[in-house]
Amino acid sequence: MLDAQGQTIADALRRMQYGGVADVRQGKYFLLTLDDSLDATAAEAEVDRIAREVLTNPVIEEYTTRIDR
Amino acid sequence: MLDAQGQTIADALRRMQYGGVADVRQGKYFLLTLDDSLDATAAEAEVDRIAREVLTNPVIEEYTTRIDR
Repeated sequence: MLDAQGQTIADALRRMQYGGVADVRQGKYFLLTLDDSLDATAAEAEVDRIAREVLTNPVIEEYTTRIDR
Repeated sequence: MLDAQGQTIADALRRMQYGGVADVRQGKYFLLTLDDSLDATAAEAEVDRIAREVLTNPVIEEYTTRIDR
């Protein structure tokens, strides 16, 4: 998706002479700490459901999820 | 640091009966694509400088950086 704020940051960095940056994308992250009530498969499904139903505005945002153990 | 929005999300998830979540922390991320003008050491230093000087408000935000190759 278009990321106007990321583009603005990339332009600003170039103008301010910071080196080496070709592109910037900007977004939100959510770090969920899980308790041990769900097994690995259920945890993955529940986190995806939370991301899709609660944390993301599907009209203007995309999301990915990752489980670290 | 205190994360009031993360706490609000955690409370909402509990109220809405989503399972397995003990804690939520919320923040911003910036994905910088680098060109090949900097070597690995210089890239790490430049990204840290950009994070500290441009992307973070040190009064209310902490940051970490990571380089993926």
